[in-house]
Amino acid sequence: MSRRNAGKRLALIGCGAMGTALGLRLLGLGWEVRVYNRSPERTAPLRDAGASAHATPAEAVAGADWVATVLTDSAALRALLFGDNGIASAPAAGRRLVDLGTHQPTQLAALGAEAAAAGWPLVEAPMTGSVHDASHGTLHFLVGGAEADVEWASPLLWALGRGVHHLGGLGAGNTAKLALNLLVGVMAGGLGEAIALLRAHGLAVDSFLDALDGSGLASPLYRRLGQRYLDGDHAPRFSLANLEKDLRWECEHALASGLQPRLAPALCRLLAPLSEEAKRRDYSALIADLAGAPSC
Amino acid sequence: MSRRNAGKRLALIGCGAMGTALGLRLLGLGWEVRVYNRSPERTAPLRDAGASAHATPAEAVAGADWVATVLTDSAALRALLFGDNGIASAPAAGRRLVDLGTHQPTQLAALGAEAAAAGWPLVEAPMTGSVHDASHGTLHFLVGGAEADVEWASPLLWALGRGVHHLGGLGAGNTAKLALNLLVGVMAGGLGEAIALLRAHGLAVDSFLDALDGSGLASPLYRRLGQRYLDGDHAPRFSLANLEKDLRWECEHALASGLQPRLAPALCRLLAPLSEEAKRRDYSALIADLAGAPSC
Repeated sequence: MSRRNAGKRLALIGCGAMGTALGLRLLGLGWEVRVYNRSPERTAPLRDAGASAHATPAEAVAGADWVATVLTDSAALRALLFGDNGIASAPAAGRRLVDLGTHQPTQLAALGAEAAAAGWPLVEAPMTGSVHDASHGTLHFLVGGAEADVEWASPLLWALGRGVHHLGGLGAGNTAKLALNLLVGVMAGGLGEAIALLRAHGLAVDSFLDALDGSGLASPLYRRLGQRYLDGDHAPRFSLANLEKDLRWECEHALASGLQPRLAPALCRLLAPLSEEAKRRDYSALIADLAGAPSC
Repeated sequence: MSRRNAGKRLALIGCGAMGTALGLRLLGLGWEVRVYNRSPERTAPLRDAGASAHATPAEAVAGADWVATVLTDSAALRALLFGDNGIASAPAAGRRLVDLGTHQPTQLAALGAEAAAAGWPLVEAPMTGSVHDASHGTLHFLVGGAEADVEWASPLLWALGRGVHHLGGLGAGNTAKLALNLLVGVMAGGLGEAIALLRAHGLAVDSFLDALDGSGLASPLYRRLGQRYLDGDHAPRFSLANLEKDLRWECEHALASGLQPRLAPALCRLLAPLSEEAKRRDYSALIADLAGAPSC
């Protein structure tokens, strides 16, 4: 245990795959981690690694220096903030709430205003990256909130990632997160359309992926998605359902902002007709769907 | 002059910006370069560097080991192949024609069949990269043609680039080139939509570009386009007219192949209404168009 970090105490609300990876990383850095999860059994990996589990959010928050939430949606965040024994019922004592999830920016900004009125200023810091990045401290955070609040949250964020990008007031972080996931969508959809064309003409997809990787368009995303396509490996990491939800939010946010998006709606129209079951697959399955079954 | 390459003789047909950069590179490597261009004055930079200029394609081709064409379109290639004193009127003597341009794959395949019948088998090798890559030998070639013909062309291609990717028979190289330029289009269009959303909410675009560059989506293309957006630098390198043409070809090729493309048509609908003058701008101007004037 690193002495340097001794005494840093985090309350972690939400122990899904990402929350667990983040909590384990902080435990490894010598932090004290206090956890709450609605289904208590999901706290087991963190308890095994030395975290303390608590019966209510308020109890987990008591005595922590930082409070982070990693939840599935805004409804869950609202419930854990304002419900019985919720975060907002604990004394804030100058602390802020750092939310790491992805939300609709206007909803998040509204929630943040309510949280601030209850004495808990909110910093939003949605993440770029995977569980692997969370475990290795290679996340980037797209941060929104008041300057002082973001500064206050920075030691936590820098312990968890390698980039803290402050984009503006509350809502800015999630706006940027949706913009980034639009790029994930266009790259995955574009690669699918490209490979579909190659396959329709019987061309060597692996050679194309090599050329792409050597070109000025090269991206770790193409390398990863191309390899999964060649391997037929679509084990779920980021589901098509989640990609569709983020693209729909991005599209609605853009339209509500007076913009005329073209690519976001095209992607939404592509994903919407898929069955619930099909959407549970990894987003790399989109490439296979567009291109047909891999031949290699 | 490198002795290693002494005696390698190229006939270069077409001395636009790319052709000139390629010819200068080969001269620098010690090749003998024989050039023909319809407008003779455009051969000046190559002549100044030691190339010989010729009055007809047939004359340039005479005595060359390799023959490369770098032309604007298939009509120009057809004219220089089969016109008076065209390439096909020169004795082939086991040589092949290496075309480095971008064409509609079916047109290129048809031209290749005619050229082969006239004794000049064709290898297509459209390029990934810019004039800068051509000057520095960092191009990649997306190659289509018969195995033996491609092998024959390889010494020339490896002298000019750092990747020779053989994708299939004639037409395959240009199919892959159009697929690659679809990705250029979706990345430029996607970045434009993303930045437009950020700007509509007054967010820090430079921080977003930093986060993008640190993420798994990072690409030299985003870095380059993002910087041009921030600088307001849209000096023409690859025109929107050329991007639109390639996207239209890709879209038509996909539809004719029985596919149902979504992103390519969305991009075509975005570009088609622009004026001829607007299309003469660099493709990075697409981002500025979508995002509004830069604020930085």
